[in-house]
Amino acid sequence: MVTGVPVYNLQDSLEDVEEGLLYNSCEYCTMDYIYFTNRKNVLKGVISIKNLVKARDKTLPSSEIMVEDLVTVDPYTDQERVVYLALSNGLKAIPVVDEAGKLLGAVPYDTILQIFNHEVQSDIFNFGGIFHRVGDEYTSIHSSAIHMIRSRLPWLIIGVIGGTLAATLIAQFEELLAGFIALASFIPVMVYMSDAAGAQTEALIIRSMALDTKLNVRKYLTREILVASALALVSGAFAALLAYLTRQNLILGIIIFLALFFSIIASVTINTVAPLILRRFNYDPALATGPLATIFSDIATLAIYLAVAITLLGGT
Amino acid sequence: MVTGVPVYNLQDSLEDVEEGLLYNSCEYCTMDYIYFTNRKNVLKGVISIKNLVKARDKTLPSSEIMVEDLVTVDPYTDQERVVYLALSNGLKAIPVVDEAGKLLGAVPYDTILQIFNHEVQSDIFNFGGIFHRVGDEYTSIHSSAIHMIRSRLPWLIIGVIGGTLAATLIAQFEELLAGFIALASFIPVMVYMSDAAGAQTEALIIRSMALDTKLNVRKYLTREILVASALALVSGAFAALLAYLTRQNLILGIIIFLALFFSIIASVTINTVAPLILRRFNYDPALATGPLATIFSDIATLAIYLAVAITLLGGT
Repeated sequence: MVTGVPVYNLQDSLEDVEEGLLYNSCEYCTMDYIYFTNRKNVLKGVISIKNLVKARDKTLPSSEIMVEDLVTVDPYTDQERVVYLALSNGLKAIPVVDEAGKLLGAVPYDTILQIFNHEVQSDIFNFGGIFHRVGDEYTSIHSSAIHMIRSRLPWLIIGVIGGTLAATLIAQFEELLAGFIALASFIPVMVYMSDAAGAQTEALIIRSMALDTKLNVRKYLTREILVASALALVSGAFAALLAYLTRQNLILGIIIFLALFFSIIASVTINTVAPLILRRFNYDPALATGPLATIFSDIATLAIYLAVAITLLGGT
Repeated sequence: MVTGVPVYNLQDSLEDVEEGLLYNSCEYCTMDYIYFTNRKNVLKGVISIKNLVKARDKTLPSSEIMVEDLVTVDPYTDQERVVYLALSNGLKAIPVVDEAGKLLGAVPYDTILQIFNHEVQSDIFNFGGIFHRVGDEYTSIHSSAIHMIRSRLPWLIIGVIGGTLAATLIAQFEELLAGFIALASFIPVMVYMSDAAGAQTEALIIRSMALDTKLNVRKYLTREILVASALALVSGAFAALLAYLTRQNLILGIIIFLALFFSIIASVTINTVAPLILRRFNYDPALATGPLATIFSDIATLAIYLAVAITLLGGT
């Protein structure tokens, strides 16, 4: 937010405003909009500099041409919300007011674009599993190889730990696998599919939260689980069909269908609920998109796959 | 691009310009900048409306206060480049000129913000594996469940096909796996790690291309492969150590190390080279981030894993 914004009185004529802008312009950080307040400094309207120049009769009081239907934020508004408001209303700057409606300053155009750029970088880096500091200006083009290794290694190390846990889980079922080795061949497709469905969920929730910071959680979750069920049904059936056709084994097909169905639903649910929970407790929801959610859904997927197999094939 | 921009002659005084703006303002779509051309309509300078209002002596010719060091684009410039120029120069609008430098119009602020928003959505949706049309305004909040299923199902179906191919590949080595069943337990960690390293690569290349549309490919690729080697070395060694500790099997540790080392390098290379190749042939590089690259790297990873295992353990 910048505080050096042009503020005039409701009663000032457009001439007064133009003259004021002329002599005080050095003090203003942004001049896209001129703000008008009453005697108590409460924001009442706004005139864009474009409309000021356009106005033919400069003796009119400002209140005649000012826009009174205002989009404002308070000092505690999320940065994302400022970007959302600018995008959805096509505004170049957004005024900041306190609880009483008093004008405190404005967020100018270049700040909005910079916030947007940082949000996007942060979302994509979280999604991709790259450690970064908030507000860190680094772009991958200019950063050193050492810096890149430091940003990328942590999630890979955590991934190795998660993967070893998964391997230890599977190890408990090695007899089962050795007895029905075709099951091992389908491990990658199980893991891949649950990751793919999870990645779609993450991409959508990142964009949904960016575009509407007041997302209706219940409605979103209901639709997402409905969608997940349909996707799980179709891809599960298709995978089962291919498994049956390539292996001529009915029980394998049934295992693949049930395991894929439940694991896609589990993965979508984990990837939707985790960011919503984080947001509820005021953490950055994007932290829950990316590697951690993937590790959890992979382990859930493997557990579901092995549980379905053991149930249908009976005992280890 | 809009063509209704204020254009005046180099010799016009600031007064003339203000008067012109006053009487022609309805024709202008954007008035953040006033453009000045010579007699051949070649763009020579620009004055922001802010500086026009600020100027105290309005009898001066415009050329006295105009900025001559201009940022321009031509009609064939990529949309991403326009956003990049606006971001890096803090501009509200960018003039469009032809080869001869003649002014054709300008890309205004709200268009720049909308382009940016679409680019981001497109990048994240490609990354997450969601089908979408370019310029499609849909956001996930308002779209129906049916629409969502249609956007998400195609990549999942392709994923099932890719996964079945992977299963068929592994099936050729089932004797090997059955004879050394611990190998099956480590399939998920191999797939997970190559995906995780690939996702990082994709996140970085998406941002790098967005921030600098004239990326130095050779330099980028060299550094990326250097970074990949370091990441592959450390995570491979760590995974091998954990595999050895949990299984007390030296040969398993060596297989995990070599396979993870080569498959991370393969995955990073696939995920870097694919978007660069697409860009080279004028396709959208983001098409190569997301599911297709993941399917290729997964199959490469499994092939590497099985090849390393068979080499070290000796023939099926």
